[in-house]
Amino acid sequence: MTKVLDVALEQRGYPIYIGGELLSRADILGRHIAGSQVMVVTNATVAPLYLDKIMPALTGFDVHTTVLPDGERYKDLDTLNSIFDALLAVPCDRKTTIVALGGGVVGDVAGFAAACYQRGVPLLQVPTTLLAQVDSSVGGKTAVNHPLGKNMIGAFHQPVAVIADTGTLHTLPQRELRAGLAEVIKYGLIGDPEFLAWLERNIESLLRLDGDALSFAIERSCRDKARVVAADEREQGERVLLNLGHTFGHAIETQAGYGNWLHGEAVAAGTAMATDLSVRQGDLSTSDQDRVINLLERAGLPVRPPADMTPAMFLEHMAVDKKVESGRIKLVLLKALGSAYLSDGYPADTLDQTLTHFCT
Amino acid sequence: MTKVLDVALEQRGYPIYIGGELLSRADILGRHIAGSQVMVVTNATVAPLYLDKIMPALTGFDVHTTVLPDGERYKDLDTLNSIFDALLAVPCDRKTTIVALGGGVVGDVAGFAAACYQRGVPLLQVPTTLLAQVDSSVGGKTAVNHPLGKNMIGAFHQPVAVIADTGTLHTLPQRELRAGLAEVIKYGLIGDPEFLAWLERNIESLLRLDGDALSFAIERSCRDKARVVAADEREQGERVLLNLGHTFGHAIETQAGYGNWLHGEAVAAGTAMATDLSVRQGDLSTSDQDRVINLLERAGLPVRPPADMTPAMFLEHMAVDKKVESGRIKLVLLKALGSAYLSDGYPADTLDQTLTHFCT
Repeated sequence: MTKVLDVALEQRGYPIYIGGELLSRADILGRHIAGSQVMVVTNATVAPLYLDKIMPALTGFDVHTTVLPDGERYKDLDTLNSIFDALLAVPCDRKTTIVALGGGVVGDVAGFAAACYQRGVPLLQVPTTLLAQVDSSVGGKTAVNHPLGKNMIGAFHQPVAVIADTGTLHTLPQRELRAGLAEVIKYGLIGDPEFLAWLERNIESLLRLDGDALSFAIERSCRDKARVVAADEREQGERVLLNLGHTFGHAIETQAGYGNWLHGEAVAAGTAMATDLSVRQGDLSTSDQDRVINLLERAGLPVRPPADMTPAMFLEHMAVDKKVESGRIKLVLLKALGSAYLSDGYPADTLDQTLTHFCT
Repeated sequence: MTKVLDVALEQRGYPIYIGGELLSRADILGRHIAGSQVMVVTNATVAPLYLDKIMPALTGFDVHTTVLPDGERYKDLDTLNSIFDALLAVPCDRKTTIVALGGGVVGDVAGFAAACYQRGVPLLQVPTTLLAQVDSSVGGKTAVNHPLGKNMIGAFHQPVAVIADTGTLHTLPQRELRAGLAEVIKYGLIGDPEFLAWLERNIESLLRLDGDALSFAIERSCRDKARVVAADEREQGERVLLNLGHTFGHAIETQAGYGNWLHGEAVAAGTAMATDLSVRQGDLSTSDQDRVINLLERAGLPVRPPADMTPAMFLEHMAVDKKVESGRIKLVLLKALGSAYLSDGYPADTLDQTLTHFCT
């Protein structure tokens, strides 16, 4: 059964389709392609699995493909430029739809290419990883990394639709599945305590790819995200709470070298750190903390940063975070399980205590 | 006397200041800087002339500078990345204002950096060439070139203000002044016949930098552009008419190698070509054509493309134009002097005749 959610953004609103066997659905893909040309952007891992499957759904269009190397380390300006090379070699016109077929990296870099090519062409997100289906494909954030900071160069560019084929999760490596769960757990922690409790009861079902559980978790995550994005498209307020664990997490990804820690793994460790800071702030109890750590661990996720990271490394990378303002690092913290807030009022000492605690 | 025009774009509206000695006006610059950090982006030619002049106006802010090499050939992704390097080396936060101090290239590339850095930071345009003051600094178009096509990678990103100090035109090379006049003449041709007639009476005054004439022409051009941009920010309709001569012109710039022909020079030759096609279409008389050619020539601008360009070269480059749709090149043509339209209905033969006429 196919579910359809709406991201309510006046002129830029769009549907999210969730279901099995959607990749080959010409009726769904076709209705979101405006012009005659299509550029499918995918990577070397996804292409052999799903390119043949999506092609019949694009019959009748002038379809071209760009296959990127796989991995976060390629989410950079050079890879972005290789997409422009491919678009201009055709040449593709300003009505060309870019189809991002793959995980978060493909979606972010292909999405940014769509934002910039001829100052903006339509983007169709076809996420094939759990992380992309529950998070990165929805909401219009696109970006590439810079050696000095993750997602530092990018744009807000909403897709014309998101098509999440849950069948693709059956070829997803277990490690990537676990990484996706970090973002799923995030939705529970920042604003959906009922979902958090559901996850505590069902995390093992998700890990063994139970169809009903997966479908429920993806839909619930997308619904939570769509609501936040509709309320705050450009991250002027509430949307920033979706970054729970991400400031610590981005520091880990940048320090470890892009791709050595998966984004979701870094977010999991970062969530553990934000939880610790929230306890030190007096907002969470240690039994709340135990619930968070326990759930992350059951999902098979790391709850500590890499052993060789120092507080100084964290502070250096966190100083480049997008939430820094006038030298002050704003952090998403928890005031309860299921309720987050953006803080720049925590004492520097408390942050130091958390960093020291996790870096020994 | 300082004049202030408004670009009326609801939440993204902004003022254009036009006058002498504005660069050093802390009261004007300061009111448009939101955060504490400023990155002035300029080039190696403009920096020695005006960096010292603008600095006192930025007292009290944390000011950094990036000096780009001068020239259209550097309007590319590498130069863009050098701005990101500089921003992240500081590091600059998401409230940093990027000040684009220079001509069209500086404005386009610094503007695109502002559009993408941390998914968008404020941009203050301080144009120092005639072309930038009358055209490229207003309206929010930013871009870099790709070897296969001009302005192919970019974004719409409106500035927070445009500050046009007409005093800077006194250091502008005569060739650059002439190039700027191509865009000034464009406003007359596409929608302002009264201004066109004024230009026919006053073009020599502009060339000798008569203050009143310059001030009038810059204000009138900005007023014409602001009206069009306010009506059609994202170029879904009327705004495309601002591209008179640009499809031919971009082909010239790409073929000649970026920077060998100035943008305004290429637009002038392109305008002559669009005028010729309009005559062949039966919309303009040959005496209209004589008026156009005569005015361009009095401004010291080329009215023919480079001698080594062939019709095939034009067609190859024009196929990559942003106005191509489903393989058809749309062109801005004149139905009268002072009235333009976008045509995809001209016969291919007629275009061939124009190209052949200009390429022998």
